[in-house]
Order: sequence, then C-alpha cells, then structure tokens
Amino acid sequence: MTLLRKATGEFVGTALLLAAVVGSGIMGERLAGGNVAVALLANSLATGAALVALILSFGPVSGAHFNPAVSLVGVGRGDLSRRDACAYIPAQLLGAIAGVACANAMFGEPVFAWSTHARAGFAQAMSEAVATFGLLTVIAGCGNQRPGAVPFAVGAYITAAYWFTASTSFANPAVTVARALTNTFTGIRPQDVPVFVVAQALGATAATLLFRWLDEERGK
Amino acid sequence: MTLLRKATGEFVGTALLLAAVVGSGIMGERLAGGNVAVALLANSLATGAALVALILSFGPVSGAHFNPAVSLVGVGRGDLSRRDACAYIPAQLLGAIAGVACANAMFGEPVFAWSTHARAGFAQAMSEAVATFGLLTVIAGCGNQRPGAVPFAVGAYITAAYWFTASTSFANPAVTVARALTNTFTGIRPQDVPVFVVAQALGATAATLLFRWLDEERGK
Amino acid sequence: MTLLRKATGEFVGTALLLAAVVGSGIMGERLAGGNVAVALLANSLATGAALVALILSFGPVSGAHFNPAVSLVGVGRGDLSRRDACAYIPAQLLGAIAGVACANAMFGEPVFAWSTHARAGFAQAMSEAVATFGLLTVIAGCGNQRPGAVPFAVGAYITAAYWFTASTSFANPAVTVARALTNTFTGIRPQDVPVFVVAQALGATAATLLFRWLDEERGK
Amino acid sequence: MTLLRKATGEFVGTALLLAAVVGSGIMGERLAGGNVAVALLANSLATGAALVALILSFGPVSGAHFNPAVSLVGVGRGDLSRRDACAYIPAQLLGAIAGVACANAMFGEPVFAWSTHARAGFAQAMSEAVATFGLLTVIAGCGNQRPGAVPFAVGAYITAAYWFTASTSFANPAVTVARALTNTFTGIRPQDVPVFVVAQALGATAATLLFRWLDEERGK
Repeated sequence: MTLLRKATGEFVGTALLLAAVVGSGIMGERLAGGNVAVALLANSLATGAALVALILSFGPVSGAHFNPAVSLVGVGRGDLSRRDACAYIPAQLLGAIAGVACANAMFGEPVFAWSTHARAGFAQAMSEAVATFGLLTVIAGCGNQRPGAVPFAVGAYITAAYWFTASTSFANPAVTVARALTNTFTGIRPQDVPVFVVAQALGATAATLLFRWLDEERGK
Repeated sequence: MTLLRKATGEFVGTALLLAAVVGSGIMGERLAGGNVAVALLANSLATGAALVALILSFGPVSGAHFNPAVSLVGVGRGDLSRRDACAYIPAQLLGAIAGVACANAMFGEPVFAWSTHARAGFAQAMSEAVATFGLLTVIAGCGNQRPGAVPFAVGAYITAAYWFTASTSFANPAVTVARALTNTFTGIRPQDVPVFVVAQALGATAATLLFRWLDEERGK
Repeated sequence: MTLLRKATGEFVGTALLLAAVVGSGIMGERLAGGNVAVALLANSLATGAALVALILSFGPVSGAHFNPAVSLVGVGRGDLSRRDACAYIPAQLLGAIAGVACANAMFGEPVFAWSTHARAGFAQAMSEAVATFGLLTVIAGCGNQRPGAVPFAVGAYITAAYWFTASTSFANPAVTVARALTNTFTGIRPQDVPVFVVAQALGATAATLLFRWLDEERGK
Repeated sequence: MTLLRKATGEFVGTALLLAAVVGSGIMGERLAGGNVAVALLANSLATGAALVALILSFGPVSGAHFNPAVSLVGVGRGDLSRRDACAYIPAQLLGAIAGVACANAMFGEPVFAWSTHARAGFAQAMSEAVATFGLLTVIAGCGNQRPGAVPFAVGAYITAAYWFTASTSFANPAVTVARALTNTFTGIRPQDVPVFVVAQALGATAATLLFRWLDEERGK
C-alpha cells in the first residue's frame, strides 16, 4: 500500500477515535446530570469499544497506530520506517484535531474552543507515565506473539486505564494536543499539555526498554 | 442456500435486532427512573451485545446484513447480486417492523404507535452521516482482511456510536423506518425519518469511496 | 469421557452459573439502593460474563449445555444421545438448585426460601418464548459454523436479553425452577414457573423448526 | 526465556493488575458520590478488562499467573517447575505491593496505609472459597483445550465474581496481602487476610481435585 494510503488510514482512524472519545464524553456528561461516575462509565466503555472496532478496521491499512508514541516506538524497534513515521505523525495530529472538530459539531458545540479543564500536578503526570507505560507494554507484549488479539487488548486496556489512573489515561500525544481544543468533559487546558506529553514519553521509553530486554532472548 | 432461506435469515435476524434495540430502550427507561444516562448505558450495551450474537449466528445463513445500506454497498462492491439485494431489503424492512411490534408487545405497549420523539436539526443529520460512515468503514476495513472479527467489530462500534453521536447512531434505514413505529425511548418522529435516511446514504457513500480507493492497490 | 464425568461437568457448571445469576442479583440490589436499572446492569453483565467463562471452561468436558432445553434440542438434532440427556437434565436441575443454595449462603440469606417475586401475565410469557427462541437460534446458528464463538455469542445474547425482554430472559427450565428457591432479586414465585417453562418449550421448538429448515439445504 | 525474565514478567504484570484493581476502586468511589453499585461496576469492569489485556501481554513472557494459587496448582499439575515457582511467588507478592503503592501515589493517597475495611465472617470466607474454586476451574477447564481463550475467560470470570460473591472475589493470596496496604475502596484489614488466604487455598484445592479426576480419562 502506498504511503499516502497508509497515512490516510491513520488520519481517518485517529479522527474517528477522537470523535468517539470527545463525543461520548459530551453525551455522557449531558445525560448523567452531575453523576460523573456514570458519565465516565459511558466515556470509558465507548472509547474502549471504538478502539476495538477501529484497530480491527484500520490495522490492515496502516497498522492502526493512531498515536505518535506508538509510531516512534515502532521506529525504535525497526517495525516502522522513518519515512513512514514522518507521514504518520502529522496524519495522526491532523486526524485527532479533525475528530475533535467533528465531535464538537455533532453536539452543537463551537468547532474549536480552548479547554479550561485543569489537569495539573504530580498525580496527573505520574498517571500519564503509568498509563503510557502500560499501553506500550500491552502493545509490545501482545503484539509480539498474538497480533490478532491486539485490538481487544488495547481496547480493554484503555477502558481499564480510564479508571485506574487519576488522569483518565490519555496515553497519546496527538490525543492530548487535540483535546485542548474542546471545552467539554474530555478537554485539557493547553498549559497542561506539555507535562502530559513529557510524562507519556517517559512511560513509553520505560516500556520500550523493558521489552527490549525481555525480547533479547527470544530474538525479537 | 436458496434465496428464500437467505432472505428469511435477514428477516429473523433484523427482527431480533430491533426487538433488542427497542426492548432494551423500554426496559432501560422504565427502570432508570429518569436517569437517562443509565438507560442509554443499558440500551447501548444490549444493542452491541445483540449484534455480536446475531451476526455470529446469521452470518453463515445470509451474511447478516440487517441493513439496506450494507446490502446496497455490497451490490456496489460486487459482493452481493442485485437479485439477492432485491429480496434482502424488503426482508430487512419487514423484519425490522416485526421486531418493533414484538418489543412493543413484550412490554405491553401498543403493537404499533407513531413516535413523538423529535430528532431534527443539523447536529442530528450530521451525526447520522458520521455514524453510517463509521459503520461502513468498520465493515469494509475489518471485513476485507478479518471477516471472523466483523461481529465483534460491529457490536463494539455500535455500542460506542450510541454515545459519540448526538443521534445515538441509527446508521440503518430499515431501523430508522421501523423505529418510527414505537412511541418509546428509541422512537423517532415519522417526519424526521427522511433526513436520517439521506444522511445515512451520504455517510455510506463516503465510506464506500474511501475504501474503493484504499482497496484499489491491494486488489480488493 | 465417561457419562459420569460429563454429567458432573453439567452439575458444576450449572451450579456456578446459578451462583452467578442469583449472587450478582443480590449484590446488585443491595448496593444499588433502589436504583433497579443499576442493579440489573450489574446482574446482566455478571451473568453474561459468567456464561462466557463457564462455557469456555466446561465446553470441552460436557458441551456446557447447563440448560434442559438445549439438551433436548440436541437430542432432536442428533447431537446428544438420549442416554446422555437422561443424565444431563437431572444434573442440570440439581446443579441449578445447588448454585442457588450457594449464592444464598454466600450472602447470608436462608439457604432456600420460596420466592414471592410475581412474574405473571401475557407479556412475561411472550418474553420467555422470544428469549428462548433467540437463545436456541444463536446456539444453532453460531454452533453450526463457528463453534469456537458460541461462548461469546451466548454470553452476549443473554446480557442483551436481560434488557430486551420483560421477564429478564430466564430462557432455561432448570434456571427457572431453581430461581423459585431464592426470595431475592432474581427469584420467581413457584406458581409462575409452569407458564415460563411452557413458553420456553414453545420458543425452543420454533427455533428448532426454523433451523431444521435452514439447515436442510446445507446438509446439517 | 531465563527465569529472571519470567519472574520480571510476573512482577510487572502483577503490579499493573494491582494498580488497576486499587486505582479503579479509588476513582470509582470518588466519582460515584456514595452510589456504591456504580463504583463497583467501574471497579469490576476495569479489573476484568485489565486482566484481559495483561494476560494477553504477559502470557507469552511468563504464563501470566499473577497469583500464587495459580502457580502452586501449576506445580501440582506438572506445568510449572518448583524452581520457577520459587521465583514466581515472591515476584507476585512484591509486584502486588508495588502496584498498590503505585495506585495510592497516582491518586495522592499515602503510599502505604493499613486498611480499616472489615471483611470477616462466614459469608466472606465461603465467598473466597467459591471464588477461588471458580477461578481455578476456569483456568483448568479452558486452559486444557483452548489456551488462547484463557485471557478472555479469566477477565470475564473475575468481572462476574466481583458481583456474585459477598467478598467481591479476591481469589488470589498476593492480591489479598497487598490490598491490606491501601485504606481505600478495595482494602482489607490485615487481621482478615489469613482467613481469606486459607479459604482461597481450600477453593483452589477443590478445583484441582475436580479437574485431576476429570482429566484422568483424557490423559491430561
């Protein structure tokens, strides 16, 4: 498949993912009437289910990364060429932004609006590091031996990670940047984005080093 | 399998699907006591789970389309003959109507009643276009390479799309028409049906064009 | 495997299934504080998940019927010998009763108590017929061609059917009899049991006739 | 794979499991505002989903036991060497404790704090015996014939068992010990730990004896 087609797959898939994340957050908050736990149940189940569907669908097209951290780790492991990564990452960012615009429009919100949702402090940063460490661990561990199960593993992991991290587990730099552009349930203040991205980089690096060591022996 | 048997599969499967959609909406609304988010959680999880079960069960019989948009796209892609489509689509419509009647009767509602649930405006129409685009994307993307995973991909997608679209994602003209016939949680006013169907056609067309281009290269 | 071992599988599996059904109903009702929709969400998700786990686990032992209707249909289709069915059905009944006792004991309820939960009237009976028709349809349709997916299809179907039928979908005569013995969320008055069982028999018969006709052509 | 690598897999996997169990309990309780059923829904779904992801990911590394009862039963069945078990069990305990510390830190709780959550009495002990019997039954029954389905079977089982046992189904001695170290939703008073562990041992033994007998005939 040409790189243009693969990058288009990343663009469309990431857009649909962000539409699912942001849209289900808006719907959950509107319907739950202040019961944040019920809103987050809806948000986390919808996101996990969307990931299962989208990774199954775009995996054959582009690998279904939808996440610059995943693509960069792929380059480090030799699974993705540098040239492909240079197309994937902008496609993911633009796709994420398009998906946020789509969700905002579907719910009659301004197409773009800076979020005022504060997500700062040590607990949030640590949560993002742990969340991304776990995500890359799942992708490396499951992807090595049971690639067919990756869509289910990632969907299940993210549904869980919404709940077990204080940040609700962004675990994805493109998602983090784009979510600054919606002033709804799943938004994040622009000034909180850099710490999230740095924490995600740390978590992804830790997972990569762990599996580099674990994989040494089995020759992959 | 003869066409009569295949069309019967579409009829029974679509009837059970609509029984699940409408029935779980009624049960959810009755039990939730005004908490619409909990009602929609039940409705969306029940619909997604029913789709998994029914596509697994009727896939070997008829392909388990349950949806005129899916059948028409199948004709366009050469996966379904025109003759089969001419039997499938009426079977889906009649099945959907029978399923609504069944759900209404199981819950002691009038067998048929025009819905008074308004679903109009740009946000609703855009939601249906996005929802159907996503559904056809999932079917095309997953069906090409991993047909065994389609039941899970579609069930997961629809559970998510209930939440991430403002319309709760009908994404199916037969479902849309039939849901005009129940004045309960999942109903839709008859006058809102045409816009939904047009939006669904647009979304389905966009997904078909995208995958026609993506598939060009891999020769299917 | 000897018949004794297979019947033991049916006994233990059905006991664990009933422990899950009745136990999760008690827990759900106690914690939900009057919010019946949340209690039923817990009850339906726990039952569906337990079915997935138990059918995966006891399928290789006994076929994991856990349900006299399934065993009798199996005899009719020639998948189960009459001799095996004569051991399976009492094992299922005794297992179901043991499971109810286990759930009652785990939650400090009387080990056995007649239920006072009224489940009568046309809507309830029709619901059981539809629920059992759907269950046997799923088992026949999925089991014919994709036996490995049956655990997931049945678990998903029952989770959905809790919501889309007015009776919460017993769909199993052994389960129905045993649930008369717990005066908790999932109980059923003894006098309502016979109508449920008759309705289940009608639904199972209809599904069997449908698939006998559908299968004629493909030679099974 | 060397034993050091396998034990590291058990350590990291058990740590992530406990982070998921304890973290999702804290998040659920904080957001649910006193609605314990909703908190437990979040907690049970997050734990089950995390198990699916983690067993898929660490299965190829270490077998993904995460549970001394599972490792000891593995020794009894000849699936795990004594030497490996001597490394696995401390790795699981230390991993569980590290995971609790991680969850506590992510939510701004004291890194370690003795739990004051009373879990005592016959109903609790019986629940743990039943929960562990069921877990080992699922692992033995599913693992024998369909090892690829074990991650899904275990995740589904534990989600269900949260609800159908009065103790919310610890079913794991390492988890039990570690959960004494968090004074949050999922904690357990230190003095209640020994009875839980004894009950878990009884349940695991019963399941092992059952499957030793069932497996006799099919030669494993």
